[in-house]
Amino acid sequence: MKRKDFLEVSGKSLLGLTLLSQIPAKTFAKSTKTNIQSAGGFMIEVKTKRLFLENTWTISRNSSDYKDNVLVKIEKDGVFGLGEAAPNVRYGEDNLKTIERINSVRHLFDEHDLWHFVDLKEDIFANITDQNCARCALDIAILDWVGKKLNAPLYKIWGLDKEKTPLTSYSIGIDTIENIKRKTREAEKYPLLKIKVGKDNDEEIIEAVRSVTDKPIRVDANEGWKSKEVALEKIKWLQEMGIEFIEQPMPAHMLEETRWLRDR
Amino acid sequence: MKRKDFLEVSGKSLLGLTLLSQIPAKTFAKSTKTNIQSAGGFMIEVKTKRLFLENTWTISRNSSDYKDNVLVKIEKDGVFGLGEAAPNVRYGEDNLKTIERINSVRHLFDEHDLWHFVDLKEDIFANITDQNCARCALDIAILDWVGKKLNAPLYKIWGLDKEKTPLTSYSIGIDTIENIKRKTREAEKYPLLKIKVGKDNDEEIIEAVRSVTDKPIRVDANEGWKSKEVALEKIKWLQEMGIEFIEQPMPAHMLEETRWLRDR
Repeated sequence: MKRKDFLEVSGKSLLGLTLLSQIPAKTFAKSTKTNIQSAGGFMIEVKTKRLFLENTWTISRNSSDYKDNVLVKIEKDGVFGLGEAAPNVRYGEDNLKTIERINSVRHLFDEHDLWHFVDLKEDIFANITDQNCARCALDIAILDWVGKKLNAPLYKIWGLDKEKTPLTSYSIGIDTIENIKRKTREAEKYPLLKIKVGKDNDEEIIEAVRSVTDKPIRVDANEGWKSKEVALEKIKWLQEMGIEFIEQPMPAHMLEETRWLRDR
Repeated sequence: MKRKDFLEVSGKSLLGLTLLSQIPAKTFAKSTKTNIQSAGGFMIEVKTKRLFLENTWTISRNSSDYKDNVLVKIEKDGVFGLGEAAPNVRYGEDNLKTIERINSVRHLFDEHDLWHFVDLKEDIFANITDQNCARCALDIAILDWVGKKLNAPLYKIWGLDKEKTPLTSYSIGIDTIENIKRKTREAEKYPLLKIKVGKDNDEEIIEAVRSVTDKPIRVDANEGWKSKEVALEKIKWLQEMGIEFIEQPMPAHMLEETRWLRDR
């Protein structure tokens, strides 16, 4: 089975978990919002969990000291399923909207048997159109419940080989050169790094990482390079530094320039 | 969930079972060939079962008193999975070729964990290209084993609503008018009939069925109508008799004529 197929089969659920695992949490804060409601034999709980980051997280677009993730817990027939959403501000997502959307589809859990999860998910997806993170959290919670009821992990139920899970990268944010070197050393156990760039000192950052490790690195500019000429120059230089690939080199609206870049 | 999607999800496995359930067996004959082989903790058994039909089965292409189906049994870890193939002569399939193809992929069961059934099936499908019935029997047997190990029916594992299973039709072969009437009466419990036509007395057959029942009927000409003009005339007449759809009106190679027909 090919990597792409594996991702297609495992889908958004794994993606959500993957994103989460990249966030180093200093402390798991007390929940800031709790909402419990019984719905036809169900207990559905939705809450925000503020994850304080070990290091301030900076990319070319913004900077943050915490992530407000949303946790969903679905309980029925003595088993609970857990799902988690990592709202992404870049796509207009946030924890309050996510909670609102999840609450807005509670009634669907009365209308469908939880075992008929194909229909249930189809209905949820039709009713939540603007917060993919909310869909994702519910999807994970439902399938987590199913797996626990069947007493088997999802990869087994889906017939997948867990040894063939695609490698995901550990991300290192923009920081002082000394901190970037330290974080690269601390990331020793992760085989693949994603380095955030898109500021004025990209070369300095990459050289700092390369001074500490030879492992494959990917580069994410988070739309930080504002002209195609700058982007092309950066990419040519990065190529020589043995970079696996480059993500979001240009602002999303600059499609023409990005095409120009791709052609080269 | 739409009917088409249900079929896509449930796939060939259900199709195979559906086909089988349409064959009324008079007696379940003794197996005519048995082949047992232990392969890395597996026991795989493949054999032909001759199913003697209650009535001689006649369609426009051919006639038969029995069906030689192939049964596969995969046994591992105290559980066995059963699969069945219904070879179709129209597609160059027969029981001996099916057995040969199944035997030719036995080694794949040594190379893959049975739980990694996505890879296993991909490999089987790549190695059996000319006998879809052999693929189907293995597919069913593997998934039957998985379901038994998870202690749940496949529809549940796949999140499907079994009440929404698409209706399949009960087929009535070409026969004397009296026998066709009798068989139509005997099929009382089946909500949907498929009537085999494609000979000279199609009208007589349909009128005989309609004299006994008002239920929805489908018509299968099994490529029996040899000219587009004849087919068009038949179809127009059948339309007035309240027929749901018509299958294989013309010989498979007459694509031009079939397109002409479809346009009308």
